[in-house]
Amino acid sequence: MTGILNGMRVVEGSAFVAIPLAGMTLAQMGADVIRFDRLEGGLDAHRWPVAPNGKSLFWAGLNKGKRSIAVDMKSPRGKELVTEIITAPGEDAGLFLTNLRVRGWMDHETLSKLRKDLIMVSLLGDRHGRPAVDYTVNPSLGFPDATGIPGSSDPVAHVLPAWDCIAGNLAVSSLLAAERHRLRTGQGQDVELSLKDVAAAMMGHLGIIGEVAVNGVTREKSGTALYGAYGQDFICADGRRIMVIGLTDRQWRGLVKVTGTQDAIGRLELLLHLDLGQEGARWEAREAITEILKPWFAARGADEIGKTFDAAGLTWSEFRDFGRAVREDPDLSSQNPMFQDLDQPGLGRFPVPRSPVSFSQTDRPDACPAPELGAHTEEILGDVVGLPDREIASLFDDGIVAAPHKHIYFAATHHPKQARVS
Amino acid sequence: MTGILNGMRVVEGSAFVAIPLAGMTLAQMGADVIRFDRLEGGLDAHRWPVAPNGKSLFWAGLNKGKRSIAVDMKSPRGKELVTEIITAPGEDAGLFLTNLRVRGWMDHETLSKLRKDLIMVSLLGDRHGRPAVDYTVNPSLGFPDATGIPGSSDPVAHVLPAWDCIAGNLAVSSLLAAERHRLRTGQGQDVELSLKDVAAAMMGHLGIIGEVAVNGVTREKSGTALYGAYGQDFICADGRRIMVIGLTDRQWRGLVKVTGTQDAIGRLELLLHLDLGQEGARWEAREAITEILKPWFAARGADEIGKTFDAAGLTWSEFRDFGRAVREDPDLSSQNPMFQDLDQPGLGRFPVPRSPVSFSQTDRPDACPAPELGAHTEEILGDVVGLPDREIASLFDDGIVAAPHKHIYFAATHHPKQARVS
Repeated sequence: MTGILNGMRVVEGSAFVAIPLAGMTLAQMGADVIRFDRLEGGLDAHRWPVAPNGKSLFWAGLNKGKRSIAVDMKSPRGKELVTEIITAPGEDAGLFLTNLRVRGWMDHETLSKLRKDLIMVSLLGDRHGRPAVDYTVNPSLGFPDATGIPGSSDPVAHVLPAWDCIAGNLAVSSLLAAERHRLRTGQGQDVELSLKDVAAAMMGHLGIIGEVAVNGVTREKSGTALYGAYGQDFICADGRRIMVIGLTDRQWRGLVKVTGTQDAIGRLELLLHLDLGQEGARWEAREAITEILKPWFAARGADEIGKTFDAAGLTWSEFRDFGRAVREDPDLSSQNPMFQDLDQPGLGRFPVPRSPVSFSQTDRPDACPAPELGAHTEEILGDVVGLPDREIASLFDDGIVAAPHKHIYFAATHHPKQARVS
Repeated sequence: MTGILNGMRVVEGSAFVAIPLAGMTLAQMGADVIRFDRLEGGLDAHRWPVAPNGKSLFWAGLNKGKRSIAVDMKSPRGKELVTEIITAPGEDAGLFLTNLRVRGWMDHETLSKLRKDLIMVSLLGDRHGRPAVDYTVNPSLGFPDATGIPGSSDPVAHVLPAWDCIAGNLAVSSLLAAERHRLRTGQGQDVELSLKDVAAAMMGHLGIIGEVAVNGVTREKSGTALYGAYGQDFICADGRRIMVIGLTDRQWRGLVKVTGTQDAIGRLELLLHLDLGQEGARWEAREAITEILKPWFAARGADEIGKTFDAAGLTWSEFRDFGRAVREDPDLSSQNPMFQDLDQPGLGRFPVPRSPVSFSQTDRPDACPAPELGAHTEEILGDVVGLPDREIASLFDDGIVAAPHKHIYFAATHHPKQARVS
């Protein structure tokens, strides 16, 4: 199938979430993405979650559709090979994504001597080059302190590695922007961003820095409440829990109307001298509003409430745990065209997401499993580095490169593909 | 200054986080981004946080560097104007980002009749076109149920609208990918993604769907612990709280070494029959590990610990609230070249983030304030729609368009810029 980025080749030297996600995002749009790793696998080769057989569901999730080569990067020849893969010719190649902090042979200055128009996108921990991960950036900026049940003093981390996910997507945009510029000017580019800067910028964009600097206010924990307007969770008669949104005027008026609480809300407005038509007033009065609405939810089951809300065009959802969501939500199954049920070696068959983006003029590439470490070592040395079979064979013999079944690779033959038992 | 996307023009019809963030990301890379709104402002015109004078810090944060036009989109002439802005000629124009759900005149089919190669990127709530916001997508997929203090049954929302931030960045990549394709083929494109699909795909990418489908496991709340390896918060002798990471082998060995807990950790391994060199074993034994490490932290102040950890090259950070982070962290000030102190009308002077991405061959555009609603109405009608001054003046007179000071606009003149009092 032809994805929108078909023909583009990107080389990825990475571990963990952000850059693997960036490479996969490009692969799921049709690019040929080559991830290189050391012989024993990268730092994320066994990252949790893992299946009972020890195989990493994390690796399987973040490397779908890439090609994998395993190289001994401690050896001079291994370094040369990786350098050749990164700087290989091709108008739509010369694109390198990385979060490995390798000085010297793998930096932009060195690599761009071999391919002048190389675009290298590097994700750092912080702007000073210090290590940082989502789990450390988040506390340092204040998010866990603002997360949790009101009144609690325990910090709570977000479960989603959100900064990684945002940084990875921004790395994709940066690469595409730099490639756009290269097409016009022929210039390569050394592109840098850091996980902490991505998070710090977002704090500014969302007004949180302004809130402190202008208002002198530090936002407090508010559980599941929608910040700055109205949105709250309610427990229904059947014990199920529902989130409902009163962010816009329409949503707020609709919510008051379907719950039949116009009179009570009107009295609350008089009592508090607030116009609850203003979103900020709804935020200030949120606890009182919730008390007024509670009985309506407590008297009805979640299904009835859902039907009523849908009919009124309200914005709502039900709280579920991951298990229930995966088992019950058709949007998390192959009923959603984004998902395809896929057999994955060592893991079995389950729904695997393709790109969330649909382009009208190009296909959404089919879901592909993640490669075994080194699964494409041989073909990459052939079609990207351009080595003859014999030389590829001796690289395997010398332990410079590896493939999943390298130990039964017969170096003597001129037809390694046929001779390999796998 | 010349940003990497200089020359590109993008039109944005949006509200709230994702698409405004997408437009601003492009603007901060140098694109000319035009946001159109109805006369009274979009749904996010007054979104919290707001300054004491009612001015929205949220609007100021998410619309920096854009041009703003205010148009009465209920009037046929207003619709025409917006259509002309979206479909205006220019090789690097014809790019439209939106999350407004306007059927008919503002859909791709209609607009592309006027500009065949139009690229329109639409963000929906869910793939069915139902409304959804970050606050509803998150509960439905299970994240709040997995967030919080272990043992608690209260769901906790993430404070960062992470799905919006990810979707906005993916909208940017999608637009750049589609424009890349247009350059090669001349084809326009109708591009769609939904907030819920973005989140559902990420659940798959991170292995959470596999964890349920393959392992039959629903992840439980784990506070601030680093999932699947070791990472935990500790309270220091001075009451300050520190996060430390033992994700990689190097980090783990370093942590055990600097805390002098080799013997105790060795005894724990014997006791539990676990090899704590394995990241999964560290996760399983995390509570016992934390008990062993606690006294070391409790006996030292945070500053001493930080120095020790830095010297050992460990990955750590301190927990702070938003206030302390903004006041104390130089990375959140103009000491960080990403930030510039900026005077913003009605808000004052505080550090404003530019793009987190630095490109070696092009400038990082200076920080710009967000426009007042309609601040560029007149110039956009001139330089994009190509209307003569007289016609622009009568559009103001007829109330079809607005500017911050439209009520004192003198329609009779041929030199509206000079005649306007502002």
